[in-house]
Amino acid sequence: MRPSQRQPSQLRPVRIARSFTCHAEGSVLIEMGATRVLCTASVEDSVPPFMRGRGRGWVTAEYGMLPRSTHTRTGREAAKGKQSGRTQEIQRLVGRALRAVTDLEALGERQITLDCDVLQADGGTRCAAITGAWLALNDACAHLLDSGRITLNPLRDHVAAVSVGIYRGVPVLDLDYAEDANCETDMNVVMTGKRGLVEVQGTAEGEPFSRGELNQLLDLAETGIVELVAHQKLALGL
Amino acid sequence: MRPSQRQPSQLRPVRIARSFTCHAEGSVLIEMGATRVLCTASVEDSVPPFMRGRGRGWVTAEYGMLPRSTHTRTGREAAKGKQSGRTQEIQRLVGRALRAVTDLEALGERQITLDCDVLQADGGTRCAAITGAWLALNDACAHLLDSGRITLNPLRDHVAAVSVGIYRGVPVLDLDYAEDANCETDMNVVMTGKRGLVEVQGTAEGEPFSRGELNQLLDLAETGIVELVAHQKLALGL
Amino acid sequence: MRPSQRQPSQLRPVRIARSFTCHAEGSVLIEMGATRVLCTASVEDSVPPFMRGRGRGWVTAEYGMLPRSTHTRTGREAAKGKQSGRTQEIQRLVGRALRAVTDLEALGERQITLDCDVLQADGGTRCAAITGAWLALNDACAHLLDSGRITLNPLRDHVAAVSVGIYRGVPVLDLDYAEDANCETDMNVVMTGKRGLVEVQGTAEGEPFSRGELNQLLDLAETGIVELVAHQKLALGL
Amino acid sequence: MRPSQRQPSQLRPVRIARSFTCHAEGSVLIEMGATRVLCTASVEDSVPPFMRGRGRGWVTAEYGMLPRSTHTRTGREAAKGKQSGRTQEIQRLVGRALRAVTDLEALGERQITLDCDVLQADGGTRCAAITGAWLALNDACAHLLDSGRITLNPLRDHVAAVSVGIYRGVPVLDLDYAEDANCETDMNVVMTGKRGLVEVQGTAEGEPFSRGELNQLLDLAETGIVELVAHQKLALGL
Amino acid sequence: MRPSQRQPSQLRPVRIARSFTCHAEGSVLIEMGATRVLCTASVEDSVPPFMRGRGRGWVTAEYGMLPRSTHTRTGREAAKGKQSGRTQEIQRLVGRALRAVTDLEALGERQITLDCDVLQADGGTRCAAITGAWLALNDACAHLLDSGRITLNPLRDHVAAVSVGIYRGVPVLDLDYAEDANCETDMNVVMTGKRGLVEVQGTAEGEPFSRGELNQLLDLAETGIVELVAHQKLALGL
Amino acid sequence: MRPSQRQPSQLRPVRIARSFTCHAEGSVLIEMGATRVLCTASVEDSVPPFMRGRGRGWVTAEYGMLPRSTHTRTGREAAKGKQSGRTQEIQRLVGRALRAVTDLEALGERQITLDCDVLQADGGTRCAAITGAWLALNDACAHLLDSGRITLNPLRDHVAAVSVGIYRGVPVLDLDYAEDANCETDMNVVMTGKRGLVEVQGTAEGEPFSRGELNQLLDLAETGIVELVAHQKLALGL
Repeated sequence: MRPSQRQPSQLRPVRIARSFTCHAEGSVLIEMGATRVLCTASVEDSVPPFMRGRGRGWVTAEYGMLPRSTHTRTGREAAKGKQSGRTQEIQRLVGRALRAVTDLEALGERQITLDCDVLQADGGTRCAAITGAWLALNDACAHLLDSGRITLNPLRDHVAAVSVGIYRGVPVLDLDYAEDANCETDMNVVMTGKRGLVEVQGTAEGEPFSRGELNQLLDLAETGIVELVAHQKLALGL
Repeated sequence: MRPSQRQPSQLRPVRIARSFTCHAEGSVLIEMGATRVLCTASVEDSVPPFMRGRGRGWVTAEYGMLPRSTHTRTGREAAKGKQSGRTQEIQRLVGRALRAVTDLEALGERQITLDCDVLQADGGTRCAAITGAWLALNDACAHLLDSGRITLNPLRDHVAAVSVGIYRGVPVLDLDYAEDANCETDMNVVMTGKRGLVEVQGTAEGEPFSRGELNQLLDLAETGIVELVAHQKLALGL
Repeated sequence: MRPSQRQPSQLRPVRIARSFTCHAEGSVLIEMGATRVLCTASVEDSVPPFMRGRGRGWVTAEYGMLPRSTHTRTGREAAKGKQSGRTQEIQRLVGRALRAVTDLEALGERQITLDCDVLQADGGTRCAAITGAWLALNDACAHLLDSGRITLNPLRDHVAAVSVGIYRGVPVLDLDYAEDANCETDMNVVMTGKRGLVEVQGTAEGEPFSRGELNQLLDLAETGIVELVAHQKLALGL
Repeated sequence: MRPSQRQPSQLRPVRIARSFTCHAEGSVLIEMGATRVLCTASVEDSVPPFMRGRGRGWVTAEYGMLPRSTHTRTGREAAKGKQSGRTQEIQRLVGRALRAVTDLEALGERQITLDCDVLQADGGTRCAAITGAWLALNDACAHLLDSGRITLNPLRDHVAAVSVGIYRGVPVLDLDYAEDANCETDMNVVMTGKRGLVEVQGTAEGEPFSRGELNQLLDLAETGIVELVAHQKLALGL
Repeated sequence: MRPSQRQPSQLRPVRIARSFTCHAEGSVLIEMGATRVLCTASVEDSVPPFMRGRGRGWVTAEYGMLPRSTHTRTGREAAKGKQSGRTQEIQRLVGRALRAVTDLEALGERQITLDCDVLQADGGTRCAAITGAWLALNDACAHLLDSGRITLNPLRDHVAAVSVGIYRGVPVLDLDYAEDANCETDMNVVMTGKRGLVEVQGTAEGEPFSRGELNQLLDLAETGIVELVAHQKLALGL
Repeated sequence: MRPSQRQPSQLRPVRIARSFTCHAEGSVLIEMGATRVLCTASVEDSVPPFMRGRGRGWVTAEYGMLPRSTHTRTGREAAKGKQSGRTQEIQRLVGRALRAVTDLEALGERQITLDCDVLQADGGTRCAAITGAWLALNDACAHLLDSGRITLNPLRDHVAAVSVGIYRGVPVLDLDYAEDANCETDMNVVMTGKRGLVEVQGTAEGEPFSRGELNQLLDLAETGIVELVAHQKLALGL
């Protein structure tokens, strides 16, 4: 039995609030159970040096956890003077996931930065960040279209992410912290609305896993992501 | 006329939510108009090296702004690898303000860290941080009392803060961003529930100010802080 | 046709030299075609602070590229003052892969650090690092056993890694730089000698990939890793 | 009685040496009793990026303490790799104070940097830095006028600063270290030659202070600053 | 008797391999006994900002030790976030030595960076770096001449380096680690093919040394460098 | 003819002031012409970790230049967040020079830090730092002897330093900035009171130098250091 009493293939309650803050071109608070991530999209009319002069845009992400989003306080990265390896790994993942569904030429020479800040952590923050950041990115693209700065929607598809893992021998969907800290295998899956795989990152925490287990986990992930994309559509009124 | 149509001595609407997040011993979201600051209090059963072995506790604060809490995106301090002078100035101010009303001996050898993170900025974030952090600190102290780890409440009084300034020649209370960016004199005042001054930080942005103007500003600040302390009491159900 | 004229399921020539340098408890130069990584294992009789007093050891890894291991010179990370996100991601991966086959209790309170330094890069450096570092770790464990500091071999199984990807529509094994820079999907697979999966990290560089493609890639990876484990055994004279 | 036997409203002996070093456009050693600060003004024919193309200049300040300017050695900030929050707070204060009396348009697109380095510390270093830096800035402006690079003196007025505080219940002027370390309230006041207030920074170190005490302290500060401006004029031969 | 049984004026066995790695314009592995340094030369078609627009080139060097090139593991500088004073001192020395024999005008506005990375250390790494880097620089210059990018060889002479010291009262040539750690005086000498002195860096580790001892050491160094230049010529097939 | 009209073997005017600042155990302002360096000695009753428990002391040095000690302003190292290679090279040199004449066992487990801060630079700052720091160290040792904390003077001899160089073909003593910036060969020599060599650091800036030139420079250096030691004795009233 899962600590949260959920069925193996049951997501945590998903709540999405758009326009959560007022300055950003896109601002989404996404909650997956007790996990809460604020995702904002900021449009800038220039691209980083390595992209200049190519007529294409760029989408990038940054990730952070508020110091007391966690069970015990985590030191503030700004005070330590550097971002941890985990933080960098996550923000690179979020950026890649979003670029996979973005037509950078349609964006023109501008950059959209997705800031994913964890207000409260209970497992699965990187997946929530991707699912929420897609919505913020979508709002920022709509803003660019509405204002006439671009004429073609750069977003080609939805993208969402979910974690799956083997907990006490059973493949389960959408791990919370209690499960994540005790699972044997942990996998993050990023998938498009058309069910194309964008990222599969599976790690054996204890014993190695088999191809059979991998397939069970991917099946679970797919059902979860289909639901998450439905939540994205609902949040957009589609 | 103020951009927000407020009277010179009128605070912005104040909203306070306690237990805003679930892990911290105190967690308060304070809103002053469009300014929103999340203040969490984290208790740790040890003190920094310079305080060890003296039987006294320590209260400290850290401050940060989410990158898109501002009108245009501000670079993430964790990514830059250092905290700005402004950030350090503010977190030192918040820490001093709270220690001014805390009995560090009653706290015993433990540290309470107040993290003040700005979710949305519209002027006056440091003052909102102080007013909100006092509530988070109060909840953390109550938590320590309830659990029997301390027997005497270390908090001796309320503390709250407000900005005042001269905008278009008129002394006004609780400046929002539109006023702050255009005012002649800007002052932050920190005061206890018993109306004792804890900090007065006045700066001439344009022309120097006179003793008379200083006194008008302090009068305004006092009325504002009396109201803010009432809000703190209301939030505590007192 | 692959730029290297290899068959889709053909590894690059593998060369392994043990005792490549003289000071380390394990020192292995591994070459996968033109990719050359020097992996050394250093034993230290203490563990990092977060592991102390638990009677268990720790295995960790660090990764670096010599500035001109690459086609054009890459700035030296020591001179820049920080390790890139890519470097941190890789060294975390190498450490996890090795810990997955190590009995940390059998190691006792000591740490083994695997330094993986790329002398020449032509794609697949992180996978070569894992395959080579396992050999260096094995030599360091043998050294500890020989000297009587431990009595039980902490290594429970082999571990090796290989990259696979879809290049011009065809799934291929062990991508070199020319393929890696132009492939549609790129996956790194870490597997034990008993064919248990330890890590699967697949990324769509262009179009998303399907479950069918994922399975083809995993099949290829498995044949490659079986060969790499045979190379490890050969190098050990088994 | 004050440790230095001074009257409550008595400044420490003030000594000012202009042209203390030979390279800078302005170079002033100011001594307030045992506190000695070397203030140099350096003119540069460009402004920082955020000021470019506006036809206006910039005045900024940096502050440092020699490691053994203090009673016990303070670690060198250059060796630690960062400036403390206190240092940044002080250099921001000095810069604001000087800009308050400078006509940045008259300066043209050039920057003057005031370096305030404490050779010996005995309390009140930030105030001495402001009073001395004004003289160095004045000499640098004279240098620009003499060489014909500007035609209008950018300095509109004097500016000077002094600390005041409540020591053993008595308001006193110009605290030395022995007083500063034991006072109840500490305030730094920056004022122009025309007695306009530029900065008021008051902090309760122990008990909060009252409006009455604040006024007494401001009265004291004003007498002190009037004297300091007279010293500035004397040093300029006015 | 020397620990290595060598005669006082005997170099360690010298081995030089050109084209050790494939990407760099020059790539030399030099071995002096157990000391092994990989020296690569990278050509870049621009110069650092302080050299721009003068029609001249620049030659610079960077130095690093692989963490386990040493007897016990040395922390990775990239992980620590800074290069040690020793590292910076060595790379400055290598750069100066090479520039002393380079005609920077003949090089045109391009920079050659010599990366000297120690794979295995047994004393004398900075001297081996200079001797090997000269060869890598020579290969890079030949590469520029062959490709017609320059018409005149910028290298005016050979340059090589060797350490000498007083070990147990006897002046000896080319110290290995066992001698270096226990010698009374240690000197690094850099000399051209025409026997002109480029650098002399002598340090008394224990007792001061006399002019007579200095002269004996310089005599030894000269014989060593003549041999090293012969090795350079041999490696070039001259 | 030298720019300063000095004879080739003529030192600049030497001025030495002891007890220049009041807090340090030794505090010496040394002037060599327009070069002015403040050297303070700070005693600490503990040694760095790598020296602990061996019953011996440590002497170390730090070096810095005030930003406007130079002709044009040099960026503050504390603001840049790191010390340059030059700074580190110099402070390592000063530390070695002083340790060469110090009996670390007589010092006991305590550390003396020599801070050498350049107030005004006109060439030869590292040599002035050594000559002045020896005096500060001597005063600190006298202070330890006077207070009975040590019973044996740890200083075994004087140490002083001077630069020599070949300027327009002529060997000259004690280069000032005008000479230093234009000389062909530049050498720093550190010598004890008994004329033992401690450091010889010669660099060809243009053409290589010969053994004959080296000997001429060392002769000049020796006459200079004999004079500087006499100045040290004079300053001590010996």
